[in-house]
Parts: sequence; C-alpha cells; structure tokens
Amino acid sequence: MIIVLKPGTPQAEITRISQEVDKLGLIPEKSVGKHKVVIGLVGDTAEFDPLNIQEISPFIDRVIRVEQPFKRTSLQFRYGEPSAVIVPTPNEVVIFGQNYPVVIISGPCSVENEQMIIETAHRVKAAGAQFLRGGAYKPRTSPYAFQGHGESALSLLAAARKATGLGIVTEVMDTADLEKVAEVADIIQIGARNMQNFSLLKKVGASCKPVLLKRGMSATIEEWLMAAEYILAAGNPNVILCERGIRTFDRQYTRNTLDLSVIPVLRSLTHLPIAIDPSHGTGVAKYVPAMAIAALATGCDSLMIEVHPNPAKALSDGPQSLTPDQFDELMHQIAVLSKAFDYRHPTDLRTVQDAVRQEQLSLTV
Amino acid sequence: MIIVLKPGTPQAEITRISQEVDKLGLIPEKSVGKHKVVIGLVGDTAEFDPLNIQEISPFIDRVIRVEQPFKRTSLQFRYGEPSAVIVPTPNEVVIFGQNYPVVIISGPCSVENEQMIIETAHRVKAAGAQFLRGGAYKPRTSPYAFQGHGESALSLLAAARKATGLGIVTEVMDTADLEKVAEVADIIQIGARNMQNFSLLKKVGASCKPVLLKRGMSATIEEWLMAAEYILAAGNPNVILCERGIRTFDRQYTRNTLDLSVIPVLRSLTHLPIAIDPSHGTGVAKYVPAMAIAALATGCDSLMIEVHPNPAKALSDGPQSLTPDQFDELMHQIAVLSKAFDYRHPTDLRTVQDAVRQEQLSLTV
Amino acid sequence: MIIVLKPGTPQAEITRISQEVDKLGLIPEKSVGKHKVVIGLVGDTAEFDPLNIQEISPFIDRVIRVEQPFKRTSLQFRYGEPSAVIVPTPNEVVIFGQNYPVVIISGPCSVENEQMIIETAHRVKAAGAQFLRGGAYKPRTSPYAFQGHGESALSLLAAARKATGLGIVTEVMDTADLEKVAEVADIIQIGARNMQNFSLLKKVGASCKPVLLKRGMSATIEEWLMAAEYILAAGNPNVILCERGIRTFDRQYTRNTLDLSVIPVLRSLTHLPIAIDPSHGTGVAKYVPAMAIAALATGCDSLMIEVHPNPAKALSDGPQSLTPDQFDELMHQIAVLSKAFDYRHPTDLRTVQDAVRQEQLSLTV
Amino acid sequence: MIIVLKPGTPQAEITRISQEVDKLGLIPEKSVGKHKVVIGLVGDTAEFDPLNIQEISPFIDRVIRVEQPFKRTSLQFRYGEPSAVIVPTPNEVVIFGQNYPVVIISGPCSVENEQMIIETAHRVKAAGAQFLRGGAYKPRTSPYAFQGHGESALSLLAAARKATGLGIVTEVMDTADLEKVAEVADIIQIGARNMQNFSLLKKVGASCKPVLLKRGMSATIEEWLMAAEYILAAGNPNVILCERGIRTFDRQYTRNTLDLSVIPVLRSLTHLPIAIDPSHGTGVAKYVPAMAIAALATGCDSLMIEVHPNPAKALSDGPQSLTPDQFDELMHQIAVLSKAFDYRHPTDLRTVQDAVRQEQLSLTV
Repeated sequence: MIIVLKPGTPQAEITRISQEVDKLGLIPEKSVGKHKVVIGLVGDTAEFDPLNIQEISPFIDRVIRVEQPFKRTSLQFRYGEPSAVIVPTPNEVVIFGQNYPVVIISGPCSVENEQMIIETAHRVKAAGAQFLRGGAYKPRTSPYAFQGHGESALSLLAAARKATGLGIVTEVMDTADLEKVAEVADIIQIGARNMQNFSLLKKVGASCKPVLLKRGMSATIEEWLMAAEYILAAGNPNVILCERGIRTFDRQYTRNTLDLSVIPVLRSLTHLPIAIDPSHGTGVAKYVPAMAIAALATGCDSLMIEVHPNPAKALSDGPQSLTPDQFDELMHQIAVLSKAFDYRHPTDLRTVQDAVRQEQLSLTV
Repeated sequence: MIIVLKPGTPQAEITRISQEVDKLGLIPEKSVGKHKVVIGLVGDTAEFDPLNIQEISPFIDRVIRVEQPFKRTSLQFRYGEPSAVIVPTPNEVVIFGQNYPVVIISGPCSVENEQMIIETAHRVKAAGAQFLRGGAYKPRTSPYAFQGHGESALSLLAAARKATGLGIVTEVMDTADLEKVAEVADIIQIGARNMQNFSLLKKVGASCKPVLLKRGMSATIEEWLMAAEYILAAGNPNVILCERGIRTFDRQYTRNTLDLSVIPVLRSLTHLPIAIDPSHGTGVAKYVPAMAIAALATGCDSLMIEVHPNPAKALSDGPQSLTPDQFDELMHQIAVLSKAFDYRHPTDLRTVQDAVRQEQLSLTV
Repeated sequence: MIIVLKPGTPQAEITRISQEVDKLGLIPEKSVGKHKVVIGLVGDTAEFDPLNIQEISPFIDRVIRVEQPFKRTSLQFRYGEPSAVIVPTPNEVVIFGQNYPVVIISGPCSVENEQMIIETAHRVKAAGAQFLRGGAYKPRTSPYAFQGHGESALSLLAAARKATGLGIVTEVMDTADLEKVAEVADIIQIGARNMQNFSLLKKVGASCKPVLLKRGMSATIEEWLMAAEYILAAGNPNVILCERGIRTFDRQYTRNTLDLSVIPVLRSLTHLPIAIDPSHGTGVAKYVPAMAIAALATGCDSLMIEVHPNPAKALSDGPQSLTPDQFDELMHQIAVLSKAFDYRHPTDLRTVQDAVRQEQLSLTV
Repeated sequence: MIIVLKPGTPQAEITRISQEVDKLGLIPEKSVGKHKVVIGLVGDTAEFDPLNIQEISPFIDRVIRVEQPFKRTSLQFRYGEPSAVIVPTPNEVVIFGQNYPVVIISGPCSVENEQMIIETAHRVKAAGAQFLRGGAYKPRTSPYAFQGHGESALSLLAAARKATGLGIVTEVMDTADLEKVAEVADIIQIGARNMQNFSLLKKVGASCKPVLLKRGMSATIEEWLMAAEYILAAGNPNVILCERGIRTFDRQYTRNTLDLSVIPVLRSLTHLPIAIDPSHGTGVAKYVPAMAIAALATGCDSLMIEVHPNPAKALSDGPQSLTPDQFDELMHQIAVLSKAFDYRHPTDLRTVQDAVRQEQLSLTV
C-alpha cells in the first residue's frame, strides 16, 4: 500500500503521518519523486482499508494498494518514479538508473593472476568502463573445473581497484563468504544459479552494499522480481537487475537466449535499474557486440561485458570473452550510438554526483 | 560443394565449367559477388572429390565442401556474399538485403473490411512503409475464433494495393489456396505454425514468388534454415527469414520471447535477409516500439509491425497492434536512429533499382 | 452448453427437445452415457440463458454451460462419460476408449519396400498388435532426407492390410493427399508438425474417418484440445489424442520429453481416448519398453510403438525402432502387467463388438 | 579410470595394487560387485596410460577410462553395478537401490506444529512409509510467504522420529544450518533451487550423511549428475537422485512436467538410486496417484509423496498434498501393483539388513 501526498505537504505533517502509520504496526518508507512524495507502507497491509488510512491526514492525496506480489520492487511502490543505485568508487560516484548514462562493467570471468587482472583493469578503464568484474568464487558445473582462486583472488581485485580506481563487481556464492567479499566489492553479484538462494538473498539484504542480481536460468520475470523483493524486504534498496540469457530449447549456436524484451517489460513493472550481460547471454564472443548494441538501443542502464587479455587461454568462459582490442572497438561504437539515443539525459548527472559527495556519501555506505 | 573462380575468369570458361559440372549430374548455380564469382553445385556431391572437380579448369581457385546440413541456404554456398530479395511493387522495386535500407511491412493482423484495410494502407504508406500486411486466411487456436474472410479479403488486399501502390504480404495456409494468394501477394507469408508444413514449402518453392518464412514457435535455428532449404531446393531463392518470438517457460508478461540474437547468428550462417516481427514477438503494443528499435540496432533487414485503426475492436491480435498515430511516432524514431547506424549503405540502391527496372524485372517474376 | 435429461425421459420427448433446440439455431448432439442422456448444444450459446433452455421441458434435469474454451472435446460436454472410437478392421472391430483393452499400433517409421512392410506386419500381428503403422508421406527436417515413397507406399500398406487383416494407421501431410490416404488408412494420422495445420484439421473433420492427432512439439494441452475441437467441430467425433514427447531444454539423452502426466490431466478435461508413442517420446530404442510400461500403468488407451526388421538400416528413425524380437518381449511384459491393472474391464468388449457388427458398422463408416 | 580385477584376485594383491595406485598420486576406491571387484581411480588420470596401469599386476583384467564428464557418479565407475544407499532409522535399516524394495518417503511440505507432524507421522507410518518428510527451512518464492519454523521445527521432527521410529528427510538451504539439520535428519535434502549451490554440495559432501539431491527446475540430466559428482568427489557416496518435475512451456494444468524418462536414462548412466516426487512433479493432488504408479512401473527406487492432514489449510503446497486417507488408498494400490513388477527381488533384503546390523552400521554413519 502506498500513500501519495499532495504537493506542498509540510515536512512536519509527513513526519506525523509516518508516526501514525508506525502506530498501526506498518513501516513507512518515504520516497521523493520529481513531482510527488510517496510513503510506502510495509507490513501486513491486507487487513487495512485504504479509506481509513486516507483519514489520517487531509494532505493525503490517494492511498493505493500495490496489486503485484512484489511490493517494494514494484514501480507502483514509488508511484512510477525510477530508483537509482548510487555507488561510490575510488574514481567517481557512479549512478545506475534510468536517468543516468549507461554504466559499463567489464573484465574477465575469473581472476587468474595478478598480472592479468591488473592489465585487464587498465585496459577496460582506458576504454571507458567504470567497474571491473572478476570472479574469485566461481560456480562451475563440474567439481573438476577451475573453482576460482577464492580469497587470494579477492586481494588481487583489491589491488586492481587501488591501481585503477575502478569499482569492483564480484560474486558471492555462500553466506559464509559474504563479509570477506563485501570488504573488496563495491557491488556484490548474486549469480544466476543463486537467484533463489534465499538465505543468501536475506543476508545481502541485511547490508546496504549494492547488489547485482542476475536472473536465474529459467526464472520467470515475476520470480526474479520476488528474489529482488527478498533483498529490499530485508532492508537493502540498492539492487540492480541483470539479464544474462535464459535457457530455451535451442542451444546449438548460443549458450543461452538473451531476452532483451525484459527491458521494456521491467520498465513497466519495477523502478529498479537494469543491466544486460551479452557475454553470458550469447556465450560467443563474435555475437557480443551486436547484442550489446541491441541492449543499449533497447534502453538498458548498464552493460556487463567479459574481456580477457587472451581468451584462448582463459581458465573459464574464454569463448565468450572479447579481447581488449575488440572491447575498445565496441566501446567506440557505443560512444557514437549513445549520442543517437535521447533516452538519457546526462546533463544533471554532475549535479547529483556533487550533491552525493557533499552529503559525504552518507546515503549509501 | 562450391567452385570459387579466379578473378577475371572469362564468361566462356564459366559456361564451359558449368557444362562439365552438368555432365557429372550436378546442377550449377552461379552467383556473382563483389569480388568473386562462385558456382554452387547442387546434387549428390558426397561422391565427388573436390580435387577432381578442381581439375576441370585452371580458372578454378578453390573447391569447397559445404559442411552445414543446409546447403543453398548457407553463407558458405555464396562464399560469404549476402543475397538480396528483389520485390517489384506498384510504387517501386523494393530490395531486402544486408546492403539495403530496412524495409517496413505494416498493417493489421487480418483484413476486416474494405474501409479499414484501405485506411490502414494509406496511413502506413504515409508513415513510410513499403508493404501492407493483412491476413485473409488466419491460423487461429480456436475453431470458433474469426478465421479470416478468405477470398473476399484477398480482393480487398488487391484494392488496397491498387489504391496505395504498396506491395502486399499475406499468409497462405494450404497448398490448395496458393494460386489465389499468389495472384494478389507480392510476398507470400508462411506462418510459424506452418514452418514445417513441408508440402506447402515445396509448393511455394516451385514458384519464384518471394516468401517470408516465419520461424516456428519452437523451431531451432537449424530447423528454420532447413525449412528455408526446402524452398531453395525446390528452385525459389527468394526467401526472407522472419523471427517472431519463440515459446519459452515465461509467458506471463509477453506472448513469446523475441530472440534478437538470431540476427548475428543468422549473419554467420546464411546469406538470406532477416526480418523481425516485434508485434508477435511481444504480443503487447506498448513493448513493440522498444523491440522494433532493438531489432533495427541489431541489424535486421526488415521490420514487420502490426497496425490497426482501432486495436480495441480488432477481430484478432488487437492487444499487440499499434494505432496509426503510434506507428507514425515509431517511424519517426526509426528514421532518426537509422542515420546513426552505419550498417547500411543506401547509396547504391537507386542504381540497383534502375538496373532491375531496365531488365524489365525479368529476374524476379 | 449441455442439457442433462432426467432418467427415464421418453424418446419422443428427447426428439421434441432436440427440435426446440434446433429452432433456436443450435445443433443438438445426443450422447447416451451409462446413467444419463445428455444433449450437447452446438452454436453461439453465449446469448442463451440456461434458465430459459431449462423451461423447454420438465424432463430436463440441468442445463450447464461448458466453461472450457474447447467445447465438444471437453469431458463436461458428455457429462463425464468417456467416448470410444470404434474402428472396424479386416480382423475385428477395435475400440479405443477408457473402458476397453489397450490397443497396440505398431510398425516401421516409413514403408520402405513390400517385403519389409509385409514381414513387419506379420510379426507385429503375431505379437498381438491390432494396427500396422507405416509412413507413406514423411515429414523430414531436411529436404535431402528420404521423403517417403508416397502413393506407391500406400499400395504396399493396402497389401499388408490384406495379408494380415491388421488396420492401417498412416499420416497425411497435405489436404491434397487426403482422399488417397483415406482409401487405405483405417485411422488417419495428423503428425506433430501439422497439429495446427488448421486446413488439414478441417478437412479430416469433414469425413468421419478416425483420426490420431499427435500433440505438437511445443503445444500446450489446451492448444492440443483446441486442435481436436477443430475436427469435432467439423463433424468428426472419432479423434484419438496421441502424446509423442514435447520439446524441452534437455535433448542430450532423449529426443523429446515424454509427458505422461497428460494421461491424468486429459482424463480430467476430455472424453477422448489417449494414445502414447514412447518411440518418438524418447527417440532411443532401449528406453522404449520402460516408457511403454509406464504409459500402460498410467492408464493410456493405446500404445504406438515403432518396430523395424533391421533398425540399423532403416531409412528413417532407426535409433528409436525396436526389432521384432524386442517387440515380442515387450508385448509379453505388457500382457503380464495388464492383468495387474484393474483399470480395464474387457468383459463387455465382445458385447460391444457384436452390437457394432449387428448395426452393420453403420455408425462409423 | 577403473581397474577391473580378475575373479579370484587375492585380497593381498588388491591391497598391493591399491598401494601402487596410491604411489601414482591417485586415490583408489574399491567397489565389490556381484561378479567383479573394481578399483576406481580418482585424481588427474588424464596423464596416465591405461596400458601402464595394466602392468601393475597380472590380476588386472582391464583398465577402462570413464568417458563421461561425471566420473564417480557414472555407471561405468562401478563397472555396471548399482549402488545402494543404506540408511539406519530407529525402526529398521532402510536401503535405497535397484535391488531393494521401493522406499516410501511421505509427510507434509512443512512442519506446522507438533500435533500435525506427529499425527501425520503416525498415519504415514501406518500406511507403510519408512521416512517422514517435513520442511523446517522452506524455500519460498515470496519473502512474505511462510518461511518454515526453522530450528523449532527441527525439534518437532526429532519428536516425530522418536514417536514413530520413522527416518527423517528434511531440507537444508544454507551451509550455516547444516550441522543443526544433520543432527535430526537421517537424509538431508538438497532442494531443486539449490541443486547448483556448489558451496552447499561441497559441505554435504564432506559428511557421510545420506543426501537426497533434487533435480533443478531446468537442470539437464548431465548437470544433475555433475551436481551429484560434487558430493561424491567430496567423499560422500550416499546420494539419492530425486526427479521432481522440470519447467516447460506448459504450466496451465500442472506445476511442472514430471520427467519419468529419467528413470531408464539414469539407469544407463549412473549407479545411484532414483527417487520420484510426483507431488511437486504435478502440483495437483488428484494427479499424484496416477504418476506415483507410473513411476513405480517405470522402476524407481523410492517415492516421495506429500501428505497433509488438512490440505486446504496447509501453510504451503496444500493443492499438491494427499489427505492421509488418499495416501492409504494409494499405498494399497502400490502394494498390489508391486507384486506385479518383477523388477525387485526383496528376498535378499533381510540378509543385507542383518549383515549391516552385524557390522554395527559401521559403514554408514
């Protein structure tokens, strides 16, 4: 249920309404949109009548029941206002969201050794990426395949972060590893195989570290949003949804089927930012650039692209990795095309970044 | 198997090689690319040794066996040269192909009455479409649903063609109706449910009328290309492949899952032109523009988009139809974005069209 | 909509009710169940109020609206009474239905030559099959694969029918071939790829020849029943539904995924008899016996099993064909197990067969 | 790689061979089959030549490389000998395996309160079940749905175990909970959503507690066996595979598609015992009995069936739960039909159980 306030509602009245809601046993969550202030009501709202809530204050414009099974994740919960996930990195404050420039996350599937991760970090930074991805803990189908270098890989990521100032995105697979991973990562990745690892979702929900939540291999859009809801319900609003291809009947030429229609569909359902991973989505390096551009044209907020200095010798996912040179070329294309898309209004970005800096990043970490 | 000729091979020698091939019981199919002339060998080539074929002439550069199960459809069969499907319409000669501007096919799901089809035709023409689509025979899940007006709808399509000069795309469902449909249609559509109606494929293959071959709901890319191969093998090279969404586990928010990765995949496998149908691909009008633009950015050669003057009252597929005004807006966006994509080189289009006209369209009809 | 009559309603009153219904523009279809007589009302029943229909006669017990989109196919349309498809063959009258013994259809994928089809027919008859299957027209993914011997194969099937007295099941792929096929076939098969070839469905619906309707590769149960509805709506009630495996994400060890849960599901939705084809369902001969027995245990009414005298040399589908010896063994197992299942009451079979014979088969052909 | 020994190889020689293998850096795993003794070689066998291994002893009959990506899980690793998972419960030693009677696991989706779990335990025991299932930790799509009573539910399961002597099967979702769960559970369940939670697999692999590994919703058979391989590779051979329905395009009438063909397929690939869960497989109580019997007829080693004293009021999965009375009836049918299947040879069961008892269960716990 949400309370939409009338324009010009005094701050004191907002506070009073929140207190009244609190007395009813519901948790109020304020969100300030461009035109409206909305108070989301969290808890067992089924037993309350919107009309009674409305009577709390004459400043209440409308009280609306969220019809979707996902509540905090729904677009309705913010009355149509997209949310932004703000991530401070050594270089800059990066913002994922519909009204901000597309964020590029790039790097190898797994951290193999110091030289390769530092070299790759420099290359992807030079090409324009804001984040370095790299796996320390790797979910592999076979127990005999390379499982990631674990903790030692985390220190290499920290070194790459220091060397380049890039933010770090890396995956956590086990609640027991979360603390260690969170020390290094600017964004924690929940992989496709763990999208419904509810223990893990609750635990990342209990921190406020940004989370990149990959869609499960055969997860419906509703299940994906319900997984995000686990994180939001646990208190962490900083979730980025990442499509990485779904499993279908045809796997001959591509590893998965990249479902780009999630972009307009999610836009109509949720306020959360959307990332696309064309590397896992296709599984084939030569198809990655076309699908990255397609994702960009469809309006995604972020792209996650695998880059490896020597794909042929990669310990994992080599066939889907671009070389740094191929990545340079793709980034050049992206730069040219971005200008053609008027979806984005980067003008106010600097203002937001400044504002965030001035608040000493108190909102996010 | 294909014979690649050396540059500058005299025409007389090409003729002689073709005659030699013919003597071996194989049918030679010449295709002239930008840089190379290639002779495709059709028939039971398994029993021939490429080295022996090579000895036919010193002008033969290489003899290559096509490894794919689809032969004439394969990119290899034309030695990497994309093919073009040339369709004369009353207004102009339209060319579908990788080196030509994107062709727009638009109109209602089914032809409902004279006024609506003529009105829609005028609107989509004004917006920039080259073809009018409209169903006379409709494949419907229920026997109690509107089945299309059949023959009378064909005459209405003929009237719309006359009134606007647009080309006509309409579906044939039964070999018995092919002749009637072919009289009116400039392009014959084979629907998703008939993609493996092999009798129908053979019959449209026996004419040289262009065919728009929709991908079956759960057809693999290989099966789709094999269906095209039926048409090419029967003698008709004028096939346009049309992706219209596949069936997956998630059908809650979209009717199908539009698989845009077919564009780069097909580019690596076949020389045939590629169309995308975001209307069936999503099943929801509000998602159509985003996916149309995504398809354009990914490099499709044609878009097929459903437009209905009054979607709410449409006899079929209303929920996925744009209004003429929405279509105008989408076409405006497409025009702006097309300039940003340098995939297309429209400069030589006029030359080709002129050449075709001068040959009195003898090649195509 | 159906009219359920009270027990003991006089025949004259039934006739009168039917006439009244006819005056309303609806077609009455009487079905006589064990305990009830029901009149199904076909036509645009949406505009009629059940209460008004009820007033036609005091012998009317209830008037019920069929809620499913499939009407004549629904179990409700016969007020819960299963239907039987009665097929006269040279040897005997065979009945497909829930209250009759399981019918065995067996034979090669395609008719290859006279010797193999006659030999196979004798072997499957000796093992206990009632029908010989064999393809004259074959739907093949590749245009270069064996397409069936067509008309000449039909005469070989006729010869096998004469030699053994078995009924014949063979596929029709094109409306143009229906007449020829119907001359030889006792049951006409509509293949999976043609399940939504609506022209073909309408045409087989216009005869009263029994039809074995295979489930499309990715057809939902509802779509399958709607396809059957096309045939029933066109006037032919003699439809047997045949599950043959659906397409899923896993095709490594089996060709399709045999969906045996259709048996209890269909039992709750439709009165039509159910056949299972474990040969296409698995695509692997060594898995066929286990799945045939599973289907039997789940309560299917018929089994369709591919048998070839020399699977290794079969022109099509060799890997999924049993040898005659393997088929003998399976039939032995089936005989033993059938006794354990008390689903079937074969006692009254002879009575029905006799009754049918006495009516000179007037009902069915 | 496996070493097959000649019949009559002296124990001392087996020991010597094992020591030689150990010197090569490989771990020997002996398995004693009916006719053969086999030593499986675990480790990086790729670098060894079977011929060299053969030379270790003249008692070595053959050295065979396991071709499958799953090694210890493969049927080949035990030279075709099925394995058995032996589970001591208060009442009896229960054995899961191809040569033992079908084991019945039954109970509610989740443990709701003491009365219901004790009552259900008594009822399913009386009907013939050997194990009580019941969820303490529940994976639920929605964070707002009942999540299980956690630790307190574990004590209720312990109470039910004490009251009835039944073994307990319950799910673990998080590595952090494993110890607590293992104290109560006789068999630990890994749910479908955690089939590729590799951290969890490794951790249950490090104990020797039997594990019921459910197939992931869209896991291929190979991926499922690779997940089992994680457990075996970590040292725990006591794995039971449990099919519970896969996700397909059709979810209108059933929650999942129960894939019974896994039974013959797994038989040809692995030595591990196979359980079937028709409750999750269909999601609809009225379809459960037919599919349970189908699974039995196909040759499964165990059935897992949800039973709830009052399904309409169940906190989770009510629609797929049988009432105790319905379960009684199903168990009666199973008893009758089991006699008809000669797949099972229960005669030697007592002997094995006795032997196990005499060894003081040293093998398994």
